[in-house]
Amino acid sequence: MPAPLKVALLGCGVVGTQVARRLVEHADELASRVGTRVDLVGIAVRDVAVPREDVTGTPLADLLTADAEALVDGADVVVELMGGIEPARTLILRAIQGGASVVTANKALLAQDGPALYAAADAAGVDLYFEAAVAGAIPIVRPVRESLAGDQVQRVLGIVNGTTNYVLDRMTTEGLELDQAVKEAQSLGYAEADPSADVDGYDAAAKAAILASLAFHTRVSLDDVSREGIGAVTADDVAWAQRTGHVIKLLAIAERNTSGGVTGIQVRVHPALVPADHPLAGVHGAFNAVFVEAEAAGELMFYGRGAGGAPTSSAVLGDLVSVARHRVLGGRGPVESSYAALPVLPADAARTKFQVRLDVADRPGVLAQVAARLADQDVSIEAVRQTAARVVEDDGADVAVARLLITTHAAPESALTATVAALTQLDAVRDVVSVLRVEGA
Amino acid sequence: MPAPLKVALLGCGVVGTQVARRLVEHADELASRVGTRVDLVGIAVRDVAVPREDVTGTPLADLLTADAEALVDGADVVVELMGGIEPARTLILRAIQGGASVVTANKALLAQDGPALYAAADAAGVDLYFEAAVAGAIPIVRPVRESLAGDQVQRVLGIVNGTTNYVLDRMTTEGLELDQAVKEAQSLGYAEADPSADVDGYDAAAKAAILASLAFHTRVSLDDVSREGIGAVTADDVAWAQRTGHVIKLLAIAERNTSGGVTGIQVRVHPALVPADHPLAGVHGAFNAVFVEAEAAGELMFYGRGAGGAPTSSAVLGDLVSVARHRVLGGRGPVESSYAALPVLPADAARTKFQVRLDVADRPGVLAQVAARLADQDVSIEAVRQTAARVVEDDGADVAVARLLITTHAAPESALTATVAALTQLDAVRDVVSVLRVEGA
Repeated sequence: MPAPLKVALLGCGVVGTQVARRLVEHADELASRVGTRVDLVGIAVRDVAVPREDVTGTPLADLLTADAEALVDGADVVVELMGGIEPARTLILRAIQGGASVVTANKALLAQDGPALYAAADAAGVDLYFEAAVAGAIPIVRPVRESLAGDQVQRVLGIVNGTTNYVLDRMTTEGLELDQAVKEAQSLGYAEADPSADVDGYDAAAKAAILASLAFHTRVSLDDVSREGIGAVTADDVAWAQRTGHVIKLLAIAERNTSGGVTGIQVRVHPALVPADHPLAGVHGAFNAVFVEAEAAGELMFYGRGAGGAPTSSAVLGDLVSVARHRVLGGRGPVESSYAALPVLPADAARTKFQVRLDVADRPGVLAQVAARLADQDVSIEAVRQTAARVVEDDGADVAVARLLITTHAAPESALTATVAALTQLDAVRDVVSVLRVEGA
Repeated sequence: MPAPLKVALLGCGVVGTQVARRLVEHADELASRVGTRVDLVGIAVRDVAVPREDVTGTPLADLLTADAEALVDGADVVVELMGGIEPARTLILRAIQGGASVVTANKALLAQDGPALYAAADAAGVDLYFEAAVAGAIPIVRPVRESLAGDQVQRVLGIVNGTTNYVLDRMTTEGLELDQAVKEAQSLGYAEADPSADVDGYDAAAKAAILASLAFHTRVSLDDVSREGIGAVTADDVAWAQRTGHVIKLLAIAERNTSGGVTGIQVRVHPALVPADHPLAGVHGAFNAVFVEAEAAGELMFYGRGAGGAPTSSAVLGDLVSVARHRVLGGRGPVESSYAALPVLPADAARTKFQVRLDVADRPGVLAQVAARLADQDVSIEAVRQTAARVVEDDGADVAVARLLITTHAAPESALTATVAALTQLDAVRDVVSVLRVEGA
């Protein structure tokens, strides 16, 4: 059997601890899969003295070190699980330049500096694997860049943030308002004390950038992703969605599109109405799923746990076995593929169906006025539903209104924006209650 | 750029034609992904003169040849899409021994002779890839053997036969009887004129053997798979399933199990009740899905089209890009991993929940007698539902019966078999209407 491989672990949080434990407990099995032993030689942490659950008092404690650089310099494979930009970036580059292969789960770093890291790994002839950076335990990086390598991806729709999926799911099943559901998620440990990275869609946007890069062989950075979180979604929106046979999901979307004669890709994150019979509608709780439409393969979906120590450690160890096997048997995994270099189209190039809810004056002719504003922008109406309601004015007066639910055919985002602006100018329109995109229909 | 790779295609059916077309139409993109051109140098068929849709009259027709051996001998990569055991096996071995890498979609051959082929490829140092052999377009081979290489799979539940899934889905949504649904599937081209390979579970069993081998690092052949088709499933079974919150699916199951102190695996194919909120319950029509439970990753599901020319060609081309890249860049994909060599446990070692439906005499004390027979075999009851019904005897008499629906806790298959035998001996039991396993609960 070839000489054992030395593995350095950077970071000893929830995922790091699980990776370390599994490396030790399953050492024999891993050796069978790799073709040689894979020895964990150290775990770099900021402060060795901090007590750590599942580490302090175990043999793992002896592996802790504060000298990350020395650890990296002696390793064959470096597993980076610190998160954040620095010192992760510097240590990963140091590892690559020293000839080590790298496995990372750092989506923020890859969404910001992926191309520089991929280029460094390519120049050094080492692997840089990152399955755990998108959708946790779900194998999605490998299927998209290897299994679909002979196909052409048309669209990726992902539920890639478990926190917001949990929140929206509770709003759907229990009728909770957003802030109630967020509090519940916080009490269960699904949401941070400051939930904005999840709720405002930043986390999903980083994953969207990575997924889009892989699926379309094009460099996509976080700045290319248009982003709208779930902060404006109300219990009323969720209830209306259900009445029309939909559920609301926060989606990361990357699609091939042609706009103004230019074929490119459009990458965005926003809440969307998804038909209740769409496979993504059945993704509940903190689960993640990525739905892929490819030219030949058709519709594919990958489903599983998108976060958590054990699930994420599974993805990290799968990568570790791959890069370790390459060191034993020769060869390398796929390098960054950006040959397509498609232009990233602006947000208003996206074409989707919309559902618009309006409160309008309850008198004849209003619907005709509203329909005319849509027609002005070439937005075609698929369906209108009108119900009578009563609302209480600021001055206490109780007035009759008509509530319109308009579903459009697919229209450019820019046309919809212009339409909504025109509608708000109409005297008869009391309120544009909500505007939601429909995806997967 | 390195010298172009020569690709030989064996077989020009629905999948072969799609592969050939995509190789030609997407030649530039494939070259970008592989790192050199991938040239289709010939397509071996039995009879060159037979007219072929999408081939005859196109440049592809010039590539047809009846001399498969000569074609194989000149190729860098051989793509086998003939199906069946011979001459596919001989040609694949010839290719391997000549130093070519092989991509195949031949599940029957792999389920029968996989180990010999894997060993030959390993000895020759070439790749043998077969993503398309299980679940068509769904990337499942690569995720199971690479992404989960650092994890331990506990169980695999697959809907791997689109024909039977379509049939059961139509029985569920339309209330059709089996033979009506099969006729419909035949008229749509989803089922063969002789539907027995699908309906009797042979196709699913071959895929179960391959999936089990991969997931448990153990050699599993078709003979190790216990098999029961959907032939006995009635519209009444389907309706009862719905009433109890289930759907009936034909599942390919492979699970780690301990029986009589021996840890091994149990591999089987049979119809099963699946809870309506389980992800597999939402897999409709001719779609396939594979649900995996792994120690660290937890629950994963892979969903997509399991058959058809274009979807299967996607999987074949993904493999082709992988093996071609290895020839350009060096290295090889995973070889057969059978180090775990777990014993395959007999069919009656499986433990599952059951739903048993009985017609019994409508008089006091019968339920007690029935319950005693279950207790005799240590089968514990989770729930009993009793309804009154009237049945017409052979002699025309109209008699009152009680209909019992008994759901058990998990019990060994052997205990259930003994229980059912004992129940049929009871005077008060008129008929054991159905016995169905419950999975995924």
